[in-house]
Amino acid sequence: MGRTSDARNKILDAAAALIEQRGYSALGVAEICAVAGVPKGSFYYFFESKQALARTVIDEHWATQRRQWEQLLGGGESPLRRLRDLFEATEEIQRSGQQKAGVVAGCLFGNLALELSNQAEEIRARLQEIFDEQIDLIEQVVVEAKESGLAGPSVDSREAARSIVAQIEGRVLLAKLLNDPAQLEMLWRNCLDLLQVPLEARAAID
Amino acid sequence: MGRTSDARNKILDAAAALIEQRGYSALGVAEICAVAGVPKGSFYYFFESKQALARTVIDEHWATQRRQWEQLLGGGESPLRRLRDLFEATEEIQRSGQQKAGVVAGCLFGNLALELSNQAEEIRARLQEIFDEQIDLIEQVVVEAKESGLAGPSVDSREAARSIVAQIEGRVLLAKLLNDPAQLEMLWRNCLDLLQVPLEARAAID
Repeated sequence: MGRTSDARNKILDAAAALIEQRGYSALGVAEICAVAGVPKGSFYYFFESKQALARTVIDEHWATQRRQWEQLLGGGESPLRRLRDLFEATEEIQRSGQQKAGVVAGCLFGNLALELSNQAEEIRARLQEIFDEQIDLIEQVVVEAKESGLAGPSVDSREAARSIVAQIEGRVLLAKLLNDPAQLEMLWRNCLDLLQVPLEARAAID
Repeated sequence: MGRTSDARNKILDAAAALIEQRGYSALGVAEICAVAGVPKGSFYYFFESKQALARTVIDEHWATQRRQWEQLLGGGESPLRRLRDLFEATEEIQRSGQQKAGVVAGCLFGNLALELSNQAEEIRARLQEIFDEQIDLIEQVVVEAKESGLAGPSVDSREAARSIVAQIEGRVLLAKLLNDPAQLEMLWRNCLDLLQVPLEARAAID
């Protein structure tokens, strides 16, 4: 029992690393098993298909990231400072990934959204849910920022949250393309702009 | 001569459509030739490798798109209106692509940036140049907007242009994931926010 769940974890770890490096389509089950050091025959004991494996990788990655986001965005700090914490953590994750692997890996969900949206309906549906949850988590903070008078009164909280998520994905794309985590440094100022935070209020936050 | 250049164009058209639908890694030369209706033997007469073909697809796509961007952004309209024209054209391209193919294909450059940045150094370098040119073209308009007092005086023109390109890529990602070109409708308001256009000036532009 201990050995079988160990094999499952090895497959998951290998798949997560390989999908991060090379995407999903270019991978084969044989290669995943070889990297995991697990006989290919045992793969289908744990996973119905390569797509079922990818789905599990996505779910586990989001379970971890969601906990981080909830911790960063739910704290006692002012709403704008919590958003800044999220951006700084996002930059730090890409920076430490680059230090380990030599390259910025980008966002697993963004990578797979562009690669698989029109090829794997089940993956697309799951990624839609995850991005919706991300927008929900940010929206709650934007609502607080509006209630505190920090965000502009004409800001639509839902749309602003969606714009912030889009800005994160766009900036992560540039960070990956340029292999430069510093592309994420502007997220904080972008967010202040997208929330129409008055210029005079910005100095007080820093 | 007419026939050989015809075969080259067939390969390029097939490759562009297949890369748009399924990405680069999952494609093989045999499949591209089959869709193009061209014998596989003739592929290497025109292209050194699959990567050389992808590079040509990218170059041709950017040559066309750059002309569009120059036309949209170089016109006689006010700078902000020209940016709005660019966003509307971007949405229209995704919308008409969806009407033809049933799905939003997204941005060829964004798709390949996430898929190939860490796998194909030559493609990465070319995509870096293209994104830089996009940022250049937008930056020129942002400079004009600042000079006309439409954009906020503390806006950094280069960084704002980069943020607008990131916002386009992020919004296109959501449009592809949700198969919904309307995700691009907010680009105009996002841009006004990122350029810190005063609220009272916005009504005058619409």
